Amino acid sequence: MLRASGVISLLTDFGVGDAYVGEMKGVILSICPTVTLVDISHSVLRHDVLQGAFVLSQAAPYFPEGSIHLVVVDPGVGTARKKIVLQGRRCFYVGPDNGVLSLAAEREGVVRAVEIRNEEFMLPRLSGTFEGRDVFAPVAAHLAGGVDIGVLGPDISNFERISLAKPEKRGDVLFGEVVYIDGFGNVVTNIAEGVLGPVGSGSSVRVRVGAVSAMLPLCGAYGFVAAGSPLLVIGSSGLLEVAVNMGSAEKLFGAKVGDRVEVTL
Amino acid sequence: MLRASGVISLLTDFGVGDAYVGEMKGVILSICPTVTLVDISHSVLRHDVLQGAFVLSQAAPYFPEGSIHLVVVDPGVGTARKKIVLQGRRCFYVGPDNGVLSLAAEREGVVRAVEIRNEEFMLPRLSGTFEGRDVFAPVAAHLAGGVDIGVLGPDISNFERISLAKPEKRGDVLFGEVVYIDGFGNVVTNIAEGVLGPVGSGSSVRVRVGAVSAMLPLCGAYGFVAAGSPLLVIGSSGLLEVAVNMGSAEKLFGAKVGDRVEVTL
Amino acid sequence: MLRASGVISLLTDFGVGDAYVGEMKGVILSICPTVTLVDISHSVLRHDVLQGAFVLSQAAPYFPEGSIHLVVVDPGVGTARKKIVLQGRRCFYVGPDNGVLSLAAEREGVVRAVEIRNEEFMLPRLSGTFEGRDVFAPVAAHLAGGVDIGVLGPDISNFERISLAKPEKRGDVLFGEVVYIDGFGNVVTNIAEGVLGPVGSGSSVRVRVGAVSAMLPLCGAYGFVAAGSPLLVIGSSGLLEVAVNMGSAEKLFGAKVGDRVEVTL
Repeated sequence: MLRASGVISLLTDFGVGDAYVGEMKGVILSICPTVTLVDISHSVLRHDVLQGAFVLSQAAPYFPEGSIHLVVVDPGVGTARKKIVLQGRRCFYVGPDNGVLSLAAEREGVVRAVEIRNEEFMLPRLSGTFEGRDVFAPVAAHLAGGVDIGVLGPDISNFERISLAKPEKRGDVLFGEVVYIDGFGNVVTNIAEGVLGPVGSGSSVRVRVGAVSAMLPLCGAYGFVAAGSPLLVIGSSGLLEVAVNMGSAEKLFGAKVGDRVEVTL
Repeated sequence: MLRASGVISLLTDFGVGDAYVGEMKGVILSICPTVTLVDISHSVLRHDVLQGAFVLSQAAPYFPEGSIHLVVVDPGVGTARKKIVLQGRRCFYVGPDNGVLSLAAEREGVVRAVEIRNEEFMLPRLSGTFEGRDVFAPVAAHLAGGVDIGVLGPDISNFERISLAKPEKRGDVLFGEVVYIDGFGNVVTNIAEGVLGPVGSGSSVRVRVGAVSAMLPLCGAYGFVAAGSPLLVIGSSGLLEVAVNMGSAEKLFGAKVGDRVEVTL
Repeated sequence: MLRASGVISLLTDFGVGDAYVGEMKGVILSICPTVTLVDISHSVLRHDVLQGAFVLSQAAPYFPEGSIHLVVVDPGVGTARKKIVLQGRRCFYVGPDNGVLSLAAEREGVVRAVEIRNEEFMLPRLSGTFEGRDVFAPVAAHLAGGVDIGVLGPDISNFERISLAKPEKRGDVLFGEVVYIDGFGNVVTNIAEGVLGPVGSGSSVRVRVGAVSAMLPLCGAYGFVAAGSPLLVIGSSGLLEVAVNMGSAEKLFGAKVGDRVEVTL
């Protein structure tokens, strides 16, 4: 039986200029004053459910067991899309049923899924435009305080899923795609370390990202090539990255999320 | 008698790139190690006292009773403007006497106002440029630790006030103005839900924002119109918003704070 | 004997859009759930070790004794540069041995320096690209939990140092440089209050910043000149600043870090 740890993480596309994140935290602390709040990010690209799902799936495994991940990337706020809680093997996930929770929750395995219906665990006055504050924040706080997931609403047998494209191998070429670009301009692909196989560190590999092709050394860290030089590296998430030491591979390759990636082994 | 809850919120125009917010938090934790710190925002437009006042007034009602709101949007730092604490019915407000505290504090009702004078509750070494760190942060921390507001300095009978313009109704037209634009580009007006009156959800209403006029549907949430389409909605603060589903009404209408708004009922 | 206070500050150049900061906080809370986490900034200019060192040196003195400062501005991540802990007279500093810790730690005096080698206090699976998460975060958490610095690895007799240029006086001219520009556009020099000497507040002083020269009044706060007017002020860090009331001296003077500053007394 998974017990709440008292940690609530927050991940939204709200930005940090408005009162919205503060309102959610105020609501949470009003219900559960002892909780520890951790911002994952509030700078998910507006309405970008896929990016939110990816960022959550990267961060969640590093949180304590029993953490509650409160995620509001929710272009369908106030419409008929469900409001859900997913209980994974390690953590709870609270947010809209648009797939934003699914990558992280399915990575650890979903044990139970519930639709949030019980108004007892929502704010008394509900707006149509901010269910993050009115529904998801109080639900997360009640879970942190020990409320059982089963009282929030009925169990559901299905929920929306997002999945990353899987890389394919044809002959000696791996076909993948860009799934994320971080703030440093590192271009993260969907090619996991295990899929790449035993390429000797330091050996050069032919890579195509979008329309640009190059021979790049596979290195153990950015600093093994000269400043400004491109390289391949297994990033901190275990995925193959195209990077530039102290520079931006996003700029050098003109890369964007969804771009085709080819690696010739 | 209002008791401090142990929550201190922070709202400033400092941005997040410098050490300033960290310095204030370090000071607070040095005085009151058990406090819970919550950032409302540090991205208030530089020196924009009105914007700071509005953001605070939106967030404060959602914080626990006894919260201390520490606000530093303070173009007059180091000059003769007073440094004050307002005790509202629910919360304490600490900051400069330039009106930035007034919208939120008067919304709940001001019970007591004190000028901060007692140097015992300030840092021993005072700079002329950062009273947020040297005066307001230690005062907030001492309040959180249970110090009585009365020891901070003399009671004052008046303080600077900001007030939002009130909408006017002439014939079947409501005349209001834009009071805030959020990070999504939602254009928030000063027309409260109750002032608008019983407009049927889904019915179309003629709205003018600045120089642009349009017939817009009044909807319960953004997602009830097609992506990219404009709408009217009662936002999460209970105020009429002009919005664009998954887009920016700020851009579509070229709107800015202070623009005239006309709603024909 | 310095005891950890249970406060960990974080200072990085990661930005706030990715999962990286959240991953570090998750790791810390998994090891030491009772810790208080404080962000100093995650907006240090990417790879700018000098800026990181300066920001840390400004913030650290305001933190409680026993605070642990976790700093990751680390262009050499994964290479042979050491990973270190510096124990100062007041605080602990955890990060890469590239000088980013040195300004703050030497300001209070370094009592002990240790190279982090003991894998028992790292994550079980180490990436080459994110030692902030895999090494520095768990080490900081273990220190916060009471682990002795001596078990982390061998004592070292030296570490990388950054030092700010010292101003020089020739005749009646002080020669200094711009060491920092804050988010308001205030131009911070390396000329400390004591070096400037007894200049009467209100008196005008000839200043050159880069190629621009002006007679500026030395004021006790920004608001003592008209909005938009330039001034000199002793900033909150005790250093001479060139500023513009409610404006940006960075823009007015076209200033950048490293620019020569001349003050004629």
